[in-house]
Amino acid sequence: MLGSTHGTLTTHSRPARVVACGEHPPHTVHGISDPGADGAGGPGSAAGPVVADQDVSGRPLHAPVPDLDRFFRPESVAVIGASDSEGRPNTGITRQLIAWAERVGARLHPVNPGRERVFGLPCHAGVGELPETVDLAVLLVGDPLPVIGQLAEAKVKFAVAFASGFAETGEDGAAAQARLADAVARSGLRLLGPNTNLNAFEKFRDDLDGPAIALITQSGHQGRPVFTLQELGIRLSHWAPTGNEADLETADFLSYFATRPEVGAIAAYVEGLKDGRSFLLAADRAARNKVPVVVVKVGRTETGARTAASHTGKLTGADEVVDAAMRQYGVIRVDGLDELQDTAALLARARKPTAEGVAVYSISGGTGAHFADLATAAGLTLPTLSDAKQTELHQWIPGYLNVANPIDNGGHPVGDWRGRKIIDALLADPSVGVLICPITGPFPPMSDKLAQDLVDAAEQSDKLVCVVWGSPVGTEDAYRRTLLGSSRVATFRTFANCITAVRAYLGHHRFTAHYRSPFDDAPRTLSPSARKAQALLRPGRQLSEHAAKQLLRAYGIRVPREQLVTSAAAAVRAASLVGYPAVLKGSGPELAHKTELGLVKVGLTSASQVRDAYRELTEIARYEDLPLDGVLVCQMIERGVEMVVGVTPDPLFGPTVTVGLGGVLVEVLRDIAVGVPPFGEAHARAMLRELRGHALLEGVRGMPPADTDALVETVLRVQRMALELDGELAELDINPLVVLERGQGAVALDALAICH
Amino acid sequence: MLGSTHGTLTTHSRPARVVACGEHPPHTVHGISDPGADGAGGPGSAAGPVVADQDVSGRPLHAPVPDLDRFFRPESVAVIGASDSEGRPNTGITRQLIAWAERVGARLHPVNPGRERVFGLPCHAGVGELPETVDLAVLLVGDPLPVIGQLAEAKVKFAVAFASGFAETGEDGAAAQARLADAVARSGLRLLGPNTNLNAFEKFRDDLDGPAIALITQSGHQGRPVFTLQELGIRLSHWAPTGNEADLETADFLSYFATRPEVGAIAAYVEGLKDGRSFLLAADRAARNKVPVVVVKVGRTETGARTAASHTGKLTGADEVVDAAMRQYGVIRVDGLDELQDTAALLARARKPTAEGVAVYSISGGTGAHFADLATAAGLTLPTLSDAKQTELHQWIPGYLNVANPIDNGGHPVGDWRGRKIIDALLADPSVGVLICPITGPFPPMSDKLAQDLVDAAEQSDKLVCVVWGSPVGTEDAYRRTLLGSSRVATFRTFANCITAVRAYLGHHRFTAHYRSPFDDAPRTLSPSARKAQALLRPGRQLSEHAAKQLLRAYGIRVPREQLVTSAAAAVRAASLVGYPAVLKGSGPELAHKTELGLVKVGLTSASQVRDAYRELTEIARYEDLPLDGVLVCQMIERGVEMVVGVTPDPLFGPTVTVGLGGVLVEVLRDIAVGVPPFGEAHARAMLRELRGHALLEGVRGMPPADTDALVETVLRVQRMALELDGELAELDINPLVVLERGQGAVALDALAICH
Repeated sequence: MLGSTHGTLTTHSRPARVVACGEHPPHTVHGISDPGADGAGGPGSAAGPVVADQDVSGRPLHAPVPDLDRFFRPESVAVIGASDSEGRPNTGITRQLIAWAERVGARLHPVNPGRERVFGLPCHAGVGELPETVDLAVLLVGDPLPVIGQLAEAKVKFAVAFASGFAETGEDGAAAQARLADAVARSGLRLLGPNTNLNAFEKFRDDLDGPAIALITQSGHQGRPVFTLQELGIRLSHWAPTGNEADLETADFLSYFATRPEVGAIAAYVEGLKDGRSFLLAADRAARNKVPVVVVKVGRTETGARTAASHTGKLTGADEVVDAAMRQYGVIRVDGLDELQDTAALLARARKPTAEGVAVYSISGGTGAHFADLATAAGLTLPTLSDAKQTELHQWIPGYLNVANPIDNGGHPVGDWRGRKIIDALLADPSVGVLICPITGPFPPMSDKLAQDLVDAAEQSDKLVCVVWGSPVGTEDAYRRTLLGSSRVATFRTFANCITAVRAYLGHHRFTAHYRSPFDDAPRTLSPSARKAQALLRPGRQLSEHAAKQLLRAYGIRVPREQLVTSAAAAVRAASLVGYPAVLKGSGPELAHKTELGLVKVGLTSASQVRDAYRELTEIARYEDLPLDGVLVCQMIERGVEMVVGVTPDPLFGPTVTVGLGGVLVEVLRDIAVGVPPFGEAHARAMLRELRGHALLEGVRGMPPADTDALVETVLRVQRMALELDGELAELDINPLVVLERGQGAVALDALAICH
Repeated sequence: MLGSTHGTLTTHSRPARVVACGEHPPHTVHGISDPGADGAGGPGSAAGPVVADQDVSGRPLHAPVPDLDRFFRPESVAVIGASDSEGRPNTGITRQLIAWAERVGARLHPVNPGRERVFGLPCHAGVGELPETVDLAVLLVGDPLPVIGQLAEAKVKFAVAFASGFAETGEDGAAAQARLADAVARSGLRLLGPNTNLNAFEKFRDDLDGPAIALITQSGHQGRPVFTLQELGIRLSHWAPTGNEADLETADFLSYFATRPEVGAIAAYVEGLKDGRSFLLAADRAARNKVPVVVVKVGRTETGARTAASHTGKLTGADEVVDAAMRQYGVIRVDGLDELQDTAALLARARKPTAEGVAVYSISGGTGAHFADLATAAGLTLPTLSDAKQTELHQWIPGYLNVANPIDNGGHPVGDWRGRKIIDALLADPSVGVLICPITGPFPPMSDKLAQDLVDAAEQSDKLVCVVWGSPVGTEDAYRRTLLGSSRVATFRTFANCITAVRAYLGHHRFTAHYRSPFDDAPRTLSPSARKAQALLRPGRQLSEHAAKQLLRAYGIRVPREQLVTSAAAAVRAASLVGYPAVLKGSGPELAHKTELGLVKVGLTSASQVRDAYRELTEIARYEDLPLDGVLVCQMIERGVEMVVGVTPDPLFGPTVTVGLGGVLVEVLRDIAVGVPPFGEAHARAMLRELRGHALLEGVRGMPPADTDALVETVLRVQRMALELDGELAELDINPLVVLERGQGAVALDALAICH
């Protein structure tokens, strides 16, 4: 929906500037509304048909929610290319669609110029001959492009294109897809595909109730396990197989599902994103509406990214940036489809926790110890139960068994009336928000009753009850009937998946409770700094250290006192102004690795040392044939924590801001946190906490705590610079930024800036 | 088996010195043999009844393999405390034992003074009245201690004690357990338990063939899932529920199973180890015999360790040391019982790989991309198939699909004769050692045939074929019948477990192919260095820096040129001898954190600077009331990589050697590798590769590569010191050890040594 070049391998970094959302015809044609009930709209949404406002970089700050009701529940459907000849692939699809239409009560109209009837239904020669304005057209034709115009004329709202051979096949296919996207954008139609399938119109169980999972996948096969959860009693409301996303993309479904009352959680399998900003805005919508989003995103490795690109023709993006973006908006990223299933199922159905404490209850001390070990390692909290609660539990559990948490009942009490008492007592404890009962070995005399007691107790409690059914067999009655038959007990097959899901559940509620959309506070207009900075930029060039530092000063980022000089005598004069000890550095437009080249002299304490250093530097530059625009004489900054702060462009998300610990930590361990704009102060602080070497900022080896406020302020100023100068400033690298002790600020000792 | 204090919370660090293996009566009574066919015995084993030799620290270098044949397959069994009165717990156990004895053809003799017959069998009044010498006595009595002597007199070989209330209940129980262990040690009997159960005598399926899993667990409930694998067609040969390990311990079963021909892999659930060295010797036995050992070990966290201790009354040990010990001996540690099952099942049954390359084959490009992403991230290698192989595959797979690896067949070819052709072609590729086919969504027309083709092809290939059956339901025929019915296809339910198991499989074969037992080369006699070093030690004291460095010199570890002086004039004379620039440091027996105290002055370039520094140091010491034995005047070492090397005592394993990167890396990130003696040069090198900041040693930021040979040599010398001075030297910390550039050596700039 953002223009013709998307869903190809050449996604631009700044798509939103090219075609703004408000310019897109469908928004007015279909009257796209904003169902967000929480003031999510921002300035644009109040004005009816949307003109989205933009941040200072030209990216939208608001995305309308497409109204896809008639896509998923059409009253009338046309099947273009319908067939009932044996052996043709379209015949099977037509048959499935007819069965589906009958089931959901939709009117179906076959279209095929070569037939009178298809499977007994009257067949129409062309789109123009349809007896009514249909909601949805299913395109089974080899080339959907010529049909788009006809569909627009017939005022068809939605189309699904099955044809393959587009962006997933390489350059020619990408060009064909661009033409298709362009036609769709002009048509007023919303298109799913090409290269998609019937998943949206599968047979959904309608006998299940409670909140459902809505599913988005870029591969039908990969979505199947989540869909199959219905056989285990988990309700599914929608499945959007997005295919090549020439028009409708993952983000559209994400924001639509986030506004549907029946959706308890969204599960997605993503190979590549069409556009970074539209994804962020959709994730923001879900976060505002407190709808959990669980995602498998391929692209952890080069191999995965390459293979995914060849599958759906999409960029996977730099994985650490995708990962950071997801964390910023509370999107829960998991690795396996099994984790996707288990986590989405739990999040869809569990109520808000009343406490974060987890009680682990088992018929074996070993099982409790093992589960507690893994749960604690994953960051879950097992509160020690109060003495009173332990005394209460020991009414039913032998005194020599440990009931502090984990709670070991030794087995026998579950077999009689005591079993239920224990569970109720645990659920009544105010420190307990989640009760987890791992049953690793099924022993019917105990485990059948235990399972039933857990199901019964969960019915009468607001708290989350989880069971891990550890038997590898999985055909046992206690599992199949009792546990899976309950919509109040979340049943897992492994400790790991239970822990992952419970952590995500508690994390989701913690995140959304404090969520504040960064789009509300994103800068909309250029600051005075930008005008000053723009005058310093040199298109296509790397700036000299001196110019790069002036850029920083324009944004209020502190640099050492320094002067650019061109003679030894001037260097000495400058040194007495900046103060001793002084630092001398060669300065030139394309210089990097100055230390390795010998172009930095530190700790100069006298005029004669400054003079000698000046001569040495200029001689090295002459000898190495490095053009200098002068020598920088700088104030020496001695004690502080060395950090790096920078701007790196990302093909999906545009400029990103990085912060990391300097020196060996960044060079050897790449201990870096990435922020995807827009983000606020709280997130900038969270980025620091993500650093493995974070403790350095708190002071180690007798060093005082560092001025993290100043560091955070620098990160935010760099973000502002990145947004305001987007399109002009390609990259920025402050290395090192020395963070002084608390209250003393932070100083950029060196900086590298590259212009577009 | 190592004396009376084990299996309690007060395990000593040097148990082996107290009672050497050869002194244990059972070794001669039952003629314990060494079935290791690979020269594992060492000097001790050739001499018949074993006198194990020891390393220089007094720890055994060899452990005999207990002959447990008659324990697991007894011909005659006595049940002490047998009962058939309704409602008594012993009645159920007696009934189970009778059924088991009938099944395996053992003669069972109830013993109970109060009865004539039990379940129709003649009952004996006491152990002395037994009609034959039985192999095994099952003790159902509340206190097994009084029975031990009677059993010994009756020449009973093995006993199992069910009674609880020992070390798992606290101090009194631990004392009772110590008395029991002592009686057993004197008796000639081998005892399983106390606090154990009937798991060893469960109903094992005897209709399964091929290599089996042997199971060791410290919790019956936790062993159940592995045992239940038999219902999925995986053969199980033994189950040892070790309980409190008053006598027989995990290590005994480990080494016994490692010599049994029917055992393909050993799976263990461990809460705490009884003794570090016996575990290492057993793991060494398994590694020599190329028997894979897969272990869940509780104790990743403090919570887990504490809970496990209260469950079986055992120390869990410092987790990073346990982890390091397992890696050293190729023991595969996993976290979940599901991983334990899947990994042990694969390792038990899969043949030796012909290549390390993994081919990923799927009916969906998305599935292939996703699997390849996770597999590559986990370190598996997916070789790109040759052009010739890709051309061959494209005979059957449409040309637009990617077959480089992962191989996407698009779905349709699996439905006909092409399906098998593709699989055979992949298995025939020499670069492929493992074929993995993830089937995420069951679609019977495709997946049933695909499953059958994989099973058929695997029958005719030496290569490993793995399937991931991704459906969460798991009742499908293709899964239950076709895949689980095959002993040649390894079937998983999640990508993650398949990847974990395949990585363990390839890793195991790589490890054992190059395994060389470190016990063969462990030092047996004191070196001349030890005599010199012992003269420097001061019991109960921390040595001065100067003395600690003399200790290092005794072991040939280089320290800077330095002199200890007690006057400013002497300091100046010393500086001219060690050379300028010089370093001055306060030196005293209990000094630490000298830099923070201001007791270190570096970069002194003149006599007057040395004089001033001397005065300043001694004044600080006087002011702070720090007793100095003098001031060290040292050569200044400027450029190199700062490391730390040290000795840390571990309650299970004795002294361990640590190496890490110095400075912030060790202080903030604790980037440390641990070596558990004995280890050789290859392992010392492997320790360096474990460091996250390892690249620093290879040279970054224009630094030359560091002298890793000298670093490895230092680590080995420190190991020797740790073993030779064990019991005298409690702790050693060289910080920093400056590793100079290649060929230049390594220098210990500072050292801390604490004596026992």
